[in-house]
Amino acid sequence: MRILILGAAGMVGRKLTEALLAEGTLAGETIEAIDAFDVVAPDVSNVPDGVAVNAQAGDIADEATVAALVAKRPDMIFHLAAIVSGEAEADFEKGYRINMSGMQHLLEAIRGQEGVYRPRLVFTSSIAVFGAPFEDKIADTFLAAPLTSYGTQKAICELLLSDYTRKGFVDGVAIRLPTIVVRPGKPNKAASSFFSGIIREPLAGQEAILPVDDEVRHWVASPAAAVGFLLHAATMDTDLLGPRRALTMPGLSVTIAEMIEALRAVAGDEVAGRIRREPDAVIEKIVAGWPRDFDARRALEAGFTADRDFQSIIRAHIADEAVRAGGQS
Amino acid sequence: MRILILGAAGMVGRKLTEALLAEGTLAGETIEAIDAFDVVAPDVSNVPDGVAVNAQAGDIADEATVAALVAKRPDMIFHLAAIVSGEAEADFEKGYRINMSGMQHLLEAIRGQEGVYRPRLVFTSSIAVFGAPFEDKIADTFLAAPLTSYGTQKAICELLLSDYTRKGFVDGVAIRLPTIVVRPGKPNKAASSFFSGIIREPLAGQEAILPVDDEVRHWVASPAAAVGFLLHAATMDTDLLGPRRALTMPGLSVTIAEMIEALRAVAGDEVAGRIRREPDAVIEKIVAGWPRDFDARRALEAGFTADRDFQSIIRAHIADEAVRAGGQS
Repeated sequence: MRILILGAAGMVGRKLTEALLAEGTLAGETIEAIDAFDVVAPDVSNVPDGVAVNAQAGDIADEATVAALVAKRPDMIFHLAAIVSGEAEADFEKGYRINMSGMQHLLEAIRGQEGVYRPRLVFTSSIAVFGAPFEDKIADTFLAAPLTSYGTQKAICELLLSDYTRKGFVDGVAIRLPTIVVRPGKPNKAASSFFSGIIREPLAGQEAILPVDDEVRHWVASPAAAVGFLLHAATMDTDLLGPRRALTMPGLSVTIAEMIEALRAVAGDEVAGRIRREPDAVIEKIVAGWPRDFDARRALEAGFTADRDFQSIIRAHIADEAVRAGGQS
Repeated sequence: MRILILGAAGMVGRKLTEALLAEGTLAGETIEAIDAFDVVAPDVSNVPDGVAVNAQAGDIADEATVAALVAKRPDMIFHLAAIVSGEAEADFEKGYRINMSGMQHLLEAIRGQEGVYRPRLVFTSSIAVFGAPFEDKIADTFLAAPLTSYGTQKAICELLLSDYTRKGFVDGVAIRLPTIVVRPGKPNKAASSFFSGIIREPLAGQEAILPVDDEVRHWVASPAAAVGFLLHAATMDTDLLGPRRALTMPGLSVTIAEMIEALRAVAGDEVAGRIRREPDAVIEKIVAGWPRDFDARRALEAGFTADRDFQSIIRAHIADEAVRAGGQS
């Protein structure tokens, strides 16, 4: 089996590549080749014998580049490449070029292949397709009314994916990822950065700033759960989905207070005491416009599984960091 | 005021052009020029002195053509141009080219104008953005999950229109038209053709074929109501809409039996007796996938008004045909 991963250098893309290489098979077939593509060449390590990994840098908005990747006729395509919400909002043209035209080139390249070719295409969408006002628990039948260009681009990609699938050109699944917590690494400028920061920094002995109220509720999943969603989307029986190929992934709906209590339970009072409250009206306003809770029934019925609880998410992060620290020594 | 009408040669486009020329003003401003564009040059008659009408044929999927139309900086743009559902389904590339790329060129041309330029853009979307299974009465918060490429293209245009509006590039309103009944003229090959046929043909002394059951329910509006929707969308206070710029227009939810009873009440038993039942399993299956009823609350609150009842629709058709017959003599 040949696998193409678009966006393989990102956090989830790296973890997906690692998981595929560690497993060696997907849907019962031996993985023979992985094309790992991103705007910078992905750094792929621990490649077992017999697997050809081609790490390549390029522009997904370039039609010829995408056509050349698809011409290798991968059996499985993961499309994770995107510029993030903040950048798509700041640079309107770049957002549409990368986040929308990239998908259009990909779908057209697949449709343009000669002979019988209908690969599985797993696309990472986002809960940013939803915009306030919401239902209390957003159902699978709630409208996509995004309030960002990023969310608009993801919603358009979902529509295209369902239509190309319905016409038989591709076998697509779009999975709407919750906010990923705990992201490893450094804080960034995303308004959502603190959701990871208030766990990651205290565990690393550092102070973390909490800019919103303790009662703020959000929809989260661990990096490991995200990889699990991708692998399940790649191997599931898509006939179960019918023509609606976009699914809200099952996350955990947790408040900041619940997150802090989980941190206290796992790591103790001293660690939980490293969170400093510093309300920020701008961030509070942004976060107030985000979805808080979902009834992700279709995904659950299709066999996608959420994290067990927030304590498990913290423990998995601690274990991952220990592996990382070991690997870097 | 300068007005651009894309799709001015279609049935609704012609009636809109006639209404604008008859009124002479829009939103309290004198109409000075109308650019009437379509794939064939619109035939515009009854042009009053002082109004410059430019009827032009061209391809809306051609970027330069659209840019030249927008370069005249119309204050008001009506975008009605589309290929219909059946054709978009049969010719995948043409559907996306006309129904999606056309809108993209239009929005980009508007965004590309120098200086302050933010025209009102009224776009005719369709209830084809919805796909079964439905709610009994489809609410304004129900997801767009189209089951045709046409519906997909309309849903994508709605998303783009809302995002370009949110960013301040345009002042957009997308109106989802019900099935238009009674369409004048001849039967066509659209699966929905009989909804008009069972009224139009008997009134003209001809037999009409009814291919579905009497209990079939559908969502309809008259041509005059459609023109009313367009004019209201052009003149309303769009601040009321917030960022969700696509609205399901208020139609009438009527069964075939109710339509026939209305025909009998207006025109008598002999006319209503010209409907011949000839069940067609293919058409029955297509129609079963169409939406039947809506709770069009947002549009009603925003001042859009539905036809009073189905008898009024029939009477308006009879009056229109009398005018037409007079005009052709």
